[in-house]
Amino acid sequence: MRMYDLIVKKKHGRELSTGEIRFMIEKYTDGTIPDYQMSSMLMAICFCGMSKRETLDLTLAMRDSGDVMDLSKIRGIKVDKHSTGGVGDKTTLALAPLVASLGVPVAKMAGRGLGYTGGTIDKLECFPGFDTGISEETFLSNVNRIGIAVAGQTKSLAPADKKLYALRDVTGTVDELSLIASSIMSKKLCSRSDAIVLDVKTGSGAFMKQMDDACALAEQMVAIGIMAGKKTMAAITDMDQPLGFAVGNSLEVMEAIETLKGNGPTDFKQVVFALGTLMLLAAKRVQSEEEAAALMDEAIKDGRALRKLAEFVRAQGGDDTYVFNPSKFPKAPVTVPVIAEKSGYVTRIQAENIGAACMTLGGGRMTKDAQIDRSVGILLKKKNSDLVKKGEPLAYLYAAGERDLDIIIQNIRDAYEIGNEKPVRTDVVKKIITEDVISE
Amino acid sequence: MRMYDLIVKKKHGRELSTGEIRFMIEKYTDGTIPDYQMSSMLMAICFCGMSKRETLDLTLAMRDSGDVMDLSKIRGIKVDKHSTGGVGDKTTLALAPLVASLGVPVAKMAGRGLGYTGGTIDKLECFPGFDTGISEETFLSNVNRIGIAVAGQTKSLAPADKKLYALRDVTGTVDELSLIASSIMSKKLCSRSDAIVLDVKTGSGAFMKQMDDACALAEQMVAIGIMAGKKTMAAITDMDQPLGFAVGNSLEVMEAIETLKGNGPTDFKQVVFALGTLMLLAAKRVQSEEEAAALMDEAIKDGRALRKLAEFVRAQGGDDTYVFNPSKFPKAPVTVPVIAEKSGYVTRIQAENIGAACMTLGGGRMTKDAQIDRSVGILLKKKNSDLVKKGEPLAYLYAAGERDLDIIIQNIRDAYEIGNEKPVRTDVVKKIITEDVISE
Repeated sequence: MRMYDLIVKKKHGRELSTGEIRFMIEKYTDGTIPDYQMSSMLMAICFCGMSKRETLDLTLAMRDSGDVMDLSKIRGIKVDKHSTGGVGDKTTLALAPLVASLGVPVAKMAGRGLGYTGGTIDKLECFPGFDTGISEETFLSNVNRIGIAVAGQTKSLAPADKKLYALRDVTGTVDELSLIASSIMSKKLCSRSDAIVLDVKTGSGAFMKQMDDACALAEQMVAIGIMAGKKTMAAITDMDQPLGFAVGNSLEVMEAIETLKGNGPTDFKQVVFALGTLMLLAAKRVQSEEEAAALMDEAIKDGRALRKLAEFVRAQGGDDTYVFNPSKFPKAPVTVPVIAEKSGYVTRIQAENIGAACMTLGGGRMTKDAQIDRSVGILLKKKNSDLVKKGEPLAYLYAAGERDLDIIIQNIRDAYEIGNEKPVRTDVVKKIITEDVISE
Repeated sequence: MRMYDLIVKKKHGRELSTGEIRFMIEKYTDGTIPDYQMSSMLMAICFCGMSKRETLDLTLAMRDSGDVMDLSKIRGIKVDKHSTGGVGDKTTLALAPLVASLGVPVAKMAGRGLGYTGGTIDKLECFPGFDTGISEETFLSNVNRIGIAVAGQTKSLAPADKKLYALRDVTGTVDELSLIASSIMSKKLCSRSDAIVLDVKTGSGAFMKQMDDACALAEQMVAIGIMAGKKTMAAITDMDQPLGFAVGNSLEVMEAIETLKGNGPTDFKQVVFALGTLMLLAAKRVQSEEEAAALMDEAIKDGRALRKLAEFVRAQGGDDTYVFNPSKFPKAPVTVPVIAEKSGYVTRIQAENIGAACMTLGGGRMTKDAQIDRSVGILLKKKNSDLVKKGEPLAYLYAAGERDLDIIIQNIRDAYEIGNEKPVRTDVVKKIITEDVISE
C-alpha cells in the first residue's frame, strides 16, 4: 500500500477502505508517511469529504493510536460530556456535580484552554490545592466513592489526532466537518464511557458560526458515537453572546457556584439543564425530560449539588471552603465599568471580542506555556435583548492593573451591538440531536 | 504575508496576486515555506485551478528562481522547440538540423530521459565523442558559426520548478493543467529565445491521453508564451502509437538520419514538417506553409539537412562518419521477430507498452543514475491501419541477451490491438494552435 495511491484515490472522490485509513493513520503517526503527503491528503478531504464509514474508520484509527482508559471498574453507566467550546463556557463546573449528585458517575478528562479563557482544568485550579494530575487509580476510586473525578488529558491520548491537528492547523485544513468530528470523537472514545453527550456551540463566538454547520457537525459526531457503540446525543447551543454573565476563570467558577445555589443566569441554567437532561436520560436515571428537570431542581434546592461540588473539590485536594464562601477567591485589584455611549436594545454581543478582551487582561493563554491570571475577567451587565440607557454600565472589567485598559474598555464597548428595535429573544438551546434524528 | 493565508485563499477559490505567487515561490525555493504547506496549496490548486494571470505569474516566478541563458549574442531569430514527450519521439534529431540548414538558428537545451526511452541528450550521445556538457561560450559560438547547438540542462535552471515538480510527483498533484503548463514554460522561458514551438502529444502513449486535455494544455502554454512576450505556437500530434518505426536510442538516431535522407516514415516526416513549418514561420524565414514545405523538401533532397547534422555532431566533438554510414552504430547481439498470432488490421499500438518493453530491454532509465544500453530497442514493422497476416512479424526486438525475452515478446504482441475492420487512418498532426486560436 502506498500513501501516494491513497491521495490520488481520494482526490478522485473515491472512498478509502478501512484498511487504507488504518494504514494511513498508523504510518503517519510513526513517521513513515511524511507531513507533505498527509497535508495533500487533508486538502483533498476538504474538497471531497469523507463518507460516514470513512469518518468512523478515521476516528477509530486515531483512538487506537494511543492509550485508552479502562473505565470498566467504575460501577454504573458512565456518561462523558464534551463542549466544542465558547466564551464563558463554565458548564462542566456546574453540570458535573449536579448529575453526580443524582447518582450518575462522572469520569471526565478535561483540557487546559488555549485561547481566550482557560479550560475546565484552569478553572478547577482556582480552588487552592486542586490537583488534576491524579493517578488513574485515584481517579477511578474517586468516581466509585463520590461519583465524580476530573483529570487532565494524558499525553498519550490519541497521539495521531494530536499530530494531525497540528498539521491541519498550519495547512488551512481545520474546517472540514468530518475531520473536526473525527478529531473530537477520537478523544472522546478513548475514555471508554458508556454514553457521550455533546454540546455543540453555534454563533459568532463559536467555531461553527452557522446553525447549519453546527447541526451537520453534531449529526456527524452523534453518528460516529452510535456506530462506535455508544449512546450519543448532542445539544446545539447558542454562542452569539457569551454564556452567562462571567468571562474569566474565578469569575466563572463563582457563577457556577451561584448556579448550583439556584441563582445562576437563565441562559447558563438552561444549557446546564439541557445537557443534564441528556446525561440523566443516557444513564437511564430518568425516563423523561420532565423527570430530569424535577430531579435537578430538587438537587439544587436541597443543596445536594453544591455539596457534591465541595466533596469533589476536596477529594482532589482542593480547598472546599471556597465553595461555601466564594468571596475567598482572590479579586483583581482594578474594577472599572464599561459605560454605554448610546441607548437602545442589545442586539448582539460579539463573544469572540469579549474572549479576546479577557485574554488581553491576562485570563487566557496565547501560547501553551503561558501563565494565566485567574482573578481577571469581565462581568457582563447587559445581554441580548436587554434595554440599555446611555451612561449605564454594559459590563465590568476586572483587571490586574491600568495597562491597556482604555483599549480593552473600547473593545468591549465595540463588542456590543445596540439597535433601536427590541430583538426577538431566541432560545439558548437551539436543537437536540439524538440517534432518531440521524438515522437515515 | 503568511503562506497559511494564501492556502486558505486558494482553497476558497480566490485568485492569488502576483506578489503572493512570487512570495510563495521565493520562500518555498529558499526553504522558508515547508513542503507540507506547499503540498496543501498544490492540492487546493488541483481543485480550484489557476487563472491565466496566476499561471503566468507562477511561470515567471519559477523562471526567475535560477539562472537564465542570455541568447542575445546569437544573430537572428532564435526559435526553441519543446515536446511533451512520447515513445519513439526522435523529432529534435531530424528537425533541428533541418531548420538550421535553412538558416534558422537552433540553440536548444535538452534533457536526459527518465522513463521508457532516453532523451535527446542520450540519443545524441550515440555518436561516439558527442559532448553535451559544452560551455556556454562554445554553445553560443557554435550557434553563430554553424547555426546549431544542443546542450544538457544546467542544474540551476528554474530550481523552483525542480523542487515543486519533485513534490507534485509524490503528492498526487502532477496532473493539473496550469501546474503542468507553468512547469514546462518556466524552463522554456529561461533560454530567452525569441519564439517557442511546442509539440503536445496526445493519445495512449502520451501524458495527455485525451485530445481535449492536450488542446487545453497547448492553449495554456501558448497563452503563457505570448503573455511573456514570445511568439508561441503549438502542434497537437498523435501518440496513439509510437512515432515512426524505431523505439530505442541508436535505432531512433538511424531513423532520424534516414528521414534527413528522404527515407523516413510518413508519420514521423509529417510531425517534423509540421513543427519545422511553425519554426520557419516563427523565425520569419518563410511567409507560408507551402513555402516552408518546399524549402524543407529541397534541403533534404540536396543533402543540406544531412550535412548540417554531420556538422553539428562534429562541432560538439562527435564522430560524424556515423551520419553518412549508420551501419557503424553498434548492433544489439540478439534480434528476434514478434510474430502475429492472428490476421487482421492493426487498430492501435499501446505506445506505453512498447516504451515499457524498451525500458525492460535496458534502453530506458528507471532511476536517474541508471546506465542505458543505446543499442537495444524495437523496430515496428506494422503500424495503425496496416493489414497483418498470422505468422507475419509485427516488430523486431533488438536485445542484449536472451533474458526475459519471452515476456517482452508477449508484451509487445499484447500492445498490438488487431481487429477485422480497417480503421480510418487519422492524421498524425491533429491540430495547430497559434495565438489567434487562443485570443479571447
